[in-house]
Amino acid sequence: MARIAIASDHAAVDLKDLLAGWLRKQSHDVQDLGTHGSERVDYPDYGYRLARAIADGDADYGVAICGSGIGISIAVNREPSCRCALVSEPVSAALARQHNNANVVALGARLIGEDMAKACITAFLATDYEGGRHDQRVAKLSHPSLTKESV
Amino acid sequence: MARIAIASDHAAVDLKDLLAGWLRKQSHDVQDLGTHGSERVDYPDYGYRLARAIADGDADYGVAICGSGIGISIAVNREPSCRCALVSEPVSAALARQHNNANVVALGARLIGEDMAKACITAFLATDYEGGRHDQRVAKLSHPSLTKESV
Repeated sequence: MARIAIASDHAAVDLKDLLAGWLRKQSHDVQDLGTHGSERVDYPDYGYRLARAIADGDADYGVAICGSGIGISIAVNREPSCRCALVSEPVSAALARQHNNANVVALGARLIGEDMAKACITAFLATDYEGGRHDQRVAKLSHPSLTKESV
Repeated sequence: MARIAIASDHAAVDLKDLLAGWLRKQSHDVQDLGTHGSERVDYPDYGYRLARAIADGDADYGVAICGSGIGISIAVNREPSCRCALVSEPVSAALARQHNNANVVALGARLIGEDMAKACITAFLATDYEGGRHDQRVAKLSHPSLTKESV
């Protein structure tokens, strides 16, 4: 079982609460970082909160949700130790683990149905990183100085 | 017409070349940042190259493509002045502009068809940022210190 941090803005709070309960029923250690309730909030606040939980080692994986998933995925990816994949179907969710060693999956609550969201998270958690030729690429995501293009 | 930078890894070079030609036919000023040819490259190199073009003001918008779109979208979003939206359909592409003032759209060449890719880019380029309540959120994406959560 994994330590999973989950966070959303107000637009996605219902899906976030539903998925948090669903993950807990699977015996995952779920940290619900908010938001709580329907008051309008700013998605970057919750994306950064989730990113900090990953960066600090308080969670192994993250689930980040806003209306489209776009805004919160951008926020999470500001943190170099986070590799956040915005997905809408399980093929991408699995590829994010296989090739990118993604540690956060982002979803768009206004665009994805409940069962598809669960299928994405299931594929994400069930899939291992392949390593090998992907290691150098993944390393460059955390250390831009490793890229020959950025010098 | 817009100044558009486009970049991809080897897995997406055919779609990148096709989209670059299609954008040029619409009289956009297209900067093709590579890769060129089928030699294996690392997607972060091309994501960072595209991000630099946006950060330096050399392009107004970017199109970033790799196999799934995930890896290159993470790389682009390491740059605080980039707001990169990974999309698979035009609703998300339009929302990325309306709500997030996205300046880069990312696509997964192994997952999206040619016509859908064109529809995403068309929606992205045709849609204006709405401003208003979104301004504070977009500002926080570039300046994490603005968030009450990160202090």
